[in-house]
Amino acid sequence: MTLTDIEADEDVTARAGATVYVCVTCRKPDDPDDGPRPGLMLARATAEAARGTGVAVCQVECLANCSRSLSAALRCKGTWTYVFGGLEADRDAEALIEGARLLARAEDGLLPWRGRPDILKRGLIARVPPFDFTEGD
Amino acid sequence: MTLTDIEADEDVTARAGATVYVCVTCRKPDDPDDGPRPGLMLARATAEAARGTGVAVCQVECLANCSRSLSAALRCKGTWTYVFGGLEADRDAEALIEGARLLARAEDGLLPWRGRPDILKRGLIARVPPFDFTEGD
Repeated sequence: MTLTDIEADEDVTARAGATVYVCVTCRKPDDPDDGPRPGLMLARATAEAARGTGVAVCQVECLANCSRSLSAALRCKGTWTYVFGGLEADRDAEALIEGARLLARAEDGLLPWRGRPDILKRGLIARVPPFDFTEGD
Repeated sequence: MTLTDIEADEDVTARAGATVYVCVTCRKPDDPDDGPRPGLMLARATAEAARGTGVAVCQVECLANCSRSLSAALRCKGTWTYVFGGLEADRDAEALIEGARLLARAEDGLLPWRGRPDILKRGLIARVPPFDFTEGD
């Protein structure tokens, strides 16, 4: 299903540019130094989960959330940006894609609390307003 | 000094839209419930420090970095976005403006480590790429 399909299906306007940024450098303190980084494994799983959804998955070297990894961020054009931590490579790919799709359908550009996957509640690290934000929005 | 002055003065191109977002809801766990929020006091001090610099200061209700407040974020058009925590209302306004000016002069859109005020090293919470970021940037 593409974002256009979501729009047709749910009678809402889906925003363009829904993107999940996944830190590919992240690992937990007790993860081995060799082998693929858990962050990279999360990025690959998220790309797999994104197939057919219209959500882009972008690998990033570092989101600077190292002490609370694994890390990822969500953003659509014109929305707030959300940073998450405490993610697991083998558990949270679908939640990230579901979050991106929720955000793409949010008229106010804010990721709704209701219906948000639990890890995107517990793991919220920070949020930043869109570029055209003005006080009082 | 405006960003145009910075450009003339330092022979670099300053980016547009240098903005500091300050969370006005933030307070420390032991701060009293009444009286102005420390976050609001930081926002006011930062606006004062920004005078004549060309840096915009924007008050935000919540940056969702509550457990490591006080909180602020920096961004210019086309740069990475940086979120900081552990700020102090009576200490860190100048550092935020200095950070915004450094970022405005950064050709690669990354806040340089060298010359960065110490609190913007210690207090880094997360960073997110610009909207037009692609893997390999």
